Amino acid sequence: MTPPTTGLLAENTTDNNDHLVQSDDPEHPANLIPSLCAKFWTLGWVTGTGGGASIRDDDLVYLAPSGVQKELMKPSDIYVLSLAAQAQSLSRRQRVYLRSPPVYKPSQCTPLFLAAFTKRNAGCCIHTHSHWAVLVTLILEQQGSKEFRINNIEQIKGFGKGFQKSGNLGYHDTLVIPVIENTAHEEDLTEFLEEAMDKYPDTYAVLVRRHGVYVWGDNVHKAKTQCESLDYLFQLAVEMKQLGLPWITDIEPTIPTRKD
Amino acid sequence: MTPPTTGLLAENTTDNNDHLVQSDDPEHPANLIPSLCAKFWTLGWVTGTGGGASIRDDDLVYLAPSGVQKELMKPSDIYVLSLAAQAQSLSRRQRVYLRSPPVYKPSQCTPLFLAAFTKRNAGCCIHTHSHWAVLVTLILEQQGSKEFRINNIEQIKGFGKGFQKSGNLGYHDTLVIPVIENTAHEEDLTEFLEEAMDKYPDTYAVLVRRHGVYVWGDNVHKAKTQCESLDYLFQLAVEMKQLGLPWITDIEPTIPTRKD
Amino acid sequence: MTPPTTGLLAENTTDNNDHLVQSDDPEHPANLIPSLCAKFWTLGWVTGTGGGASIRDDDLVYLAPSGVQKELMKPSDIYVLSLAAQAQSLSRRQRVYLRSPPVYKPSQCTPLFLAAFTKRNAGCCIHTHSHWAVLVTLILEQQGSKEFRINNIEQIKGFGKGFQKSGNLGYHDTLVIPVIENTAHEEDLTEFLEEAMDKYPDTYAVLVRRHGVYVWGDNVHKAKTQCESLDYLFQLAVEMKQLGLPWITDIEPTIPTRKD
Amino acid sequence: MTPPTTGLLAENTTDNNDHLVQSDDPEHPANLIPSLCAKFWTLGWVTGTGGGASIRDDDLVYLAPSGVQKELMKPSDIYVLSLAAQAQSLSRRQRVYLRSPPVYKPSQCTPLFLAAFTKRNAGCCIHTHSHWAVLVTLILEQQGSKEFRINNIEQIKGFGKGFQKSGNLGYHDTLVIPVIENTAHEEDLTEFLEEAMDKYPDTYAVLVRRHGVYVWGDNVHKAKTQCESLDYLFQLAVEMKQLGLPWITDIEPTIPTRKD
Repeated sequence: MTPPTTGLLAENTTDNNDHLVQSDDPEHPANLIPSLCAKFWTLGWVTGTGGGASIRDDDLVYLAPSGVQKELMKPSDIYVLSLAAQAQSLSRRQRVYLRSPPVYKPSQCTPLFLAAFTKRNAGCCIHTHSHWAVLVTLILEQQGSKEFRINNIEQIKGFGKGFQKSGNLGYHDTLVIPVIENTAHEEDLTEFLEEAMDKYPDTYAVLVRRHGVYVWGDNVHKAKTQCESLDYLFQLAVEMKQLGLPWITDIEPTIPTRKD
Repeated sequence: MTPPTTGLLAENTTDNNDHLVQSDDPEHPANLIPSLCAKFWTLGWVTGTGGGASIRDDDLVYLAPSGVQKELMKPSDIYVLSLAAQAQSLSRRQRVYLRSPPVYKPSQCTPLFLAAFTKRNAGCCIHTHSHWAVLVTLILEQQGSKEFRINNIEQIKGFGKGFQKSGNLGYHDTLVIPVIENTAHEEDLTEFLEEAMDKYPDTYAVLVRRHGVYVWGDNVHKAKTQCESLDYLFQLAVEMKQLGLPWITDIEPTIPTRKD
Repeated sequence: MTPPTTGLLAENTTDNNDHLVQSDDPEHPANLIPSLCAKFWTLGWVTGTGGGASIRDDDLVYLAPSGVQKELMKPSDIYVLSLAAQAQSLSRRQRVYLRSPPVYKPSQCTPLFLAAFTKRNAGCCIHTHSHWAVLVTLILEQQGSKEFRINNIEQIKGFGKGFQKSGNLGYHDTLVIPVIENTAHEEDLTEFLEEAMDKYPDTYAVLVRRHGVYVWGDNVHKAKTQCESLDYLFQLAVEMKQLGLPWITDIEPTIPTRKD
Repeated sequence: MTPPTTGLLAENTTDNNDHLVQSDDPEHPANLIPSLCAKFWTLGWVTGTGGGASIRDDDLVYLAPSGVQKELMKPSDIYVLSLAAQAQSLSRRQRVYLRSPPVYKPSQCTPLFLAAFTKRNAGCCIHTHSHWAVLVTLILEQQGSKEFRINNIEQIKGFGKGFQKSGNLGYHDTLVIPVIENTAHEEDLTEFLEEAMDKYPDTYAVLVRRHGVYVWGDNVHKAKTQCESLDYLFQLAVEMKQLGLPWITDIEPTIPTRKD
């Protein structure tokens, strides 16, 4: 059991830096997180305040607060944190916020998002409670498995080959997503998420048993489209299971004959 | 069989008090009930005029009328009732409305909403006909059970520990929702709903067999997010049943090792 | 095989009567049909130009044309027909339109909508291709059945007791919807729809095998909410079938004991 | 394995011809492709940048780029290509664009869309990754089949009889959609798509195993409504499979008796 995280304003901060979340640009992270989360709510990914999203812009990390209805979030609800300041903090569990919303508490997902930013240089990380993700972890649990594996589905091409590698997976490649066991406290997942990142250096996502999934990408576009592609594959996998179809198959590549 | 409820204006009311449902504030209960119900309609919770929602603001209770299309409701359709005046009424079944819409009849759900307000001091109560809720009651009926029980799913954390208790349920806790049998007349459910509240003092919801669910909370935010979390769990439970996965499991907690 | 329907303008019509479909009132039938159909498209009821809706206002019948994308329909696409003029027509199969859109053809559903208006004095009739309706007819076909029957589900209360009867069905009542066999040409369904209306004088809907459902009501509100309630029940019935749960059960009524 | 396609501006092009994608008309292809794709995104057809749509206006072909989030596409993202110029190109694999967006790459779907335009004179071609389409190909794979066949479902009437034939399929007709095997590179599908068009001269769609479907039509209206009808039938087919219902049945036509 871990003591609760405390959130402090950075020492050299004389006000709440509200300008960090005020912009007319719809692509500004403080505007983008609410609009993305509203979209995710319609997809069933962030039901009942569950799940969330975080964006990193260079040194600054923008975070949704805890316990907010995700389709109703406002830019003024957003926390901002400096990665550099955080790195100099005495404790990994003490957060140093440049900007805090007046009424909310920090999200327990914060250290998990930070893991994606610091260990993988991600620009965005999304956490969903999608029930397709949860069902996949339950099916795998019955099989005693800690890995989701699927191949020979076109949508697999929606994933990058891995950290610092160029290009995307191919149709015949096997997409492998590790599953970590859920913990009583979400912050305590951080250690296991980081272990999974170490063991699966090319993965862009980690499933959490009976909980959901964390998906990241180099930028918002990549994190969001990888998260969509993965949810599509999870839904397909559950439906394949219901129809008795295997997730892994051995298919001979189809070779075109025409030459130009 | 019970005689139909009558609705009277309070004695000391000289007009229809339309000001009670007129406000520019989108958070005013008379505006919030229509916007919430429109959202619930898209979720399939209030199909075909079924289901509804009520908000309590101190002594005043705001109620949707009977038989209205929930996605088309207007603030002027809302009933307003005084809890104090109601308590002084000679009969539990006679309602004393401060404000009534011109064309509608009071909802048969009214005494059930009042039960949540008076017995649990709730600030909002939602009633859905979600078919996930109905399917759960049907599956339980086959098992001869009067309780929905599920544990070891992250979304369980979306529920408070109970009436006048602080904090939420944990991941390993078992969420228990009582099921009451449906009655021919919805008002007649009140007695059984109140019994279930007495028998399950910490529950925030009661399932009604072959009918739907009543969910409440200290305020609109908590009632709505608990209702969303519960519907998520009902859907997950039905899909788990289709895949042959049990709702209750015995899982050893995962303990983090890292110390900071 | 039946010769195709012809559509003529009424003899005493000197222009196309475009004023009949021009109104600023969103509740005007020429505005309501497009807005309802756009909503039905999002529900999957009128996919790929299938399905439709018609409204009767006294003697005038407003009809969507054939082959139009239902979520894109405009008031100017609407046909208008006089019931009285139609009754005086020499042939049941020749339509006499007061107003026709410039580019479309009349819908093959027209005589089926007219059956609801003339035989049941309906104010609105909705035709959906909802796949829940189609699946129910397929399940019944396997059972050699020409009737959908379900009881002891709360949503059954969403239906009126029957033509010229007051009040709605009760929770313990059995809702019975006849199924007619599909014909190669939609107009040819009319005879069988009318037969089903004669045989089931209290029904507000007729299922068409492997095709969809026709639902009507005294007015738009009743037709739409009955159609929603029915689709809810069809979906529930399919899911009950997948879970091995019976549609008809023998349940002892639950009687309240409290007296006021 | 095929060398990647190159995209060149046409020789006689002195600028990027941005006027080709600038119009106030919502029906202009450069406006229609984004609005259609946004709608398709909500249907789950173009998840995670998968799928797409192309429109032909006489000699000009409008194409969505590769890797764009389909619900966020803008007119300025659109490629424009001349069929005549393309036909004079030395290589089938070298595209000659009249107009290119500044930041994107051409879609790998381009030669497949061009096949529909050149071999079938289509006015619009849609490519979806709908998981209903993918599941149908997986079910057929288990049966060793390269054809989706379904009959006696009303929605089949949503398809034209075939290239240069007038009228639509009838209720009792069997809709046949060929399935081609997926290739590692989407461009390499072109040869097999064209073979399927030759072998099935009347089809308006080709399924791609474990990938999705290509659907076309003489114009946008027909391509879109045929694509909707097909997706409806794929969903129905998967649900029929789950319920143990056959896709092909032998049904005696129902003949009306009434004469007018």
